[in-house]
Amino acid sequence: MGISLSYEEFRRESIFFIVTGPSGVGKTTVMESLLEKDDRLTYSISHTTREARPDETHGEDYYFVGESEFEDLRDRDGFLEWAEIYGDYYGTSRKEVSAIREKGLDPFLDIDVQGAEQLRSDPELEAVFIFLAPPSLEELEQRITGRGAESPETIRKRLRVAEEEINRIREFDYLVVNEDLGETLDLLESVVKAERLKV
Amino acid sequence: MGISLSYEEFRRESIFFIVTGPSGVGKTTVMESLLEKDDRLTYSISHTTREARPDETHGEDYYFVGESEFEDLRDRDGFLEWAEIYGDYYGTSRKEVSAIREKGLDPFLDIDVQGAEQLRSDPELEAVFIFLAPPSLEELEQRITGRGAESPETIRKRLRVAEEEINRIREFDYLVVNEDLGETLDLLESVVKAERLKV
Repeated sequence: MGISLSYEEFRRESIFFIVTGPSGVGKTTVMESLLEKDDRLTYSISHTTREARPDETHGEDYYFVGESEFEDLRDRDGFLEWAEIYGDYYGTSRKEVSAIREKGLDPFLDIDVQGAEQLRSDPELEAVFIFLAPPSLEELEQRITGRGAESPETIRKRLRVAEEEINRIREFDYLVVNEDLGETLDLLESVVKAERLKV
Repeated sequence: MGISLSYEEFRRESIFFIVTGPSGVGKTTVMESLLEKDDRLTYSISHTTREARPDETHGEDYYFVGESEFEDLRDRDGFLEWAEIYGDYYGTSRKEVSAIREKGLDPFLDIDVQGAEQLRSDPELEAVFIFLAPPSLEELEQRITGRGAESPETIRKRLRVAEEEINRIREFDYLVVNEDLGETLDLLESVVKAERLKV
């Protein structure tokens, strides 16, 4: 059927997707389902100094590194963002993200709201920011409580933080309310598809 | 399940979608199928001075008006864009679009590339521009020829114009290649959904 027109020149080569939202909103579940459905989306593995849990694998869930290694990388500006949380370091390495981009794939990161804000404020970083929000605070409370092992005080604190985070939605590009997993996945897939159609 | 969080304040009230592309690319077919599937998308009816064809209805396909009525409206700045094509006027009235927006619905317009460019250059107009492109010029030629009633010279001219139009894709927001109707509809729906999720 003749020579196809090539529209490659109008397309972006790689798109960096960042999903953020309050703790307990379901970022990881949503992300895992989405990654399974889309071959171009590639999980960006973070660095951490915390110890691996029995079910976690180095180079798959995280890069588990020592403190001095982390600090060394950080001091050489090796992280797009990093934070210390309860005495452990967490960070997104520049090398990880650019390695995915160089393959023409789309890096995909799930990150807490503070980390997302750090990335957002980087003027050189081009990325699509999606805020995943709970349908209600009661629902979020249930999800946090359902995980167990959290004291009532920790839960109250998390909910206060969540409320503050919801007030910062305007800093991000897309807002998806995670009411139903199937619907949320459908909406996230729409965002991914639409971003890939952008000129 | 408690009080839902309202995210209304983060959403846009109404989004104006404009689909453009070369003559023969299939804008009308695509648009009709899309409008059937989405209750918020509302066809923005254009004004014209050309005569109604037997299967066309005033106030449905077009507002069929006389020349002096059109010129009068035009002179009172009543059109977002207008053009004279082969001696007939065509235009998109401001009132039509704002009436749809005031109902909280999303106006949807299919328009030739020249008209879309006029709209694009209006700094006050907020709209989402989607360029529908043919998979190949041969395919476009087939579609134009399939309509019949076109002389070889008209067809050649249309293809030349189409090529020029394809070079202007960068002026628009999204590029959708209309290879397969089902796939095209799916991509357009993704754009519509994603735009509604924008903060």
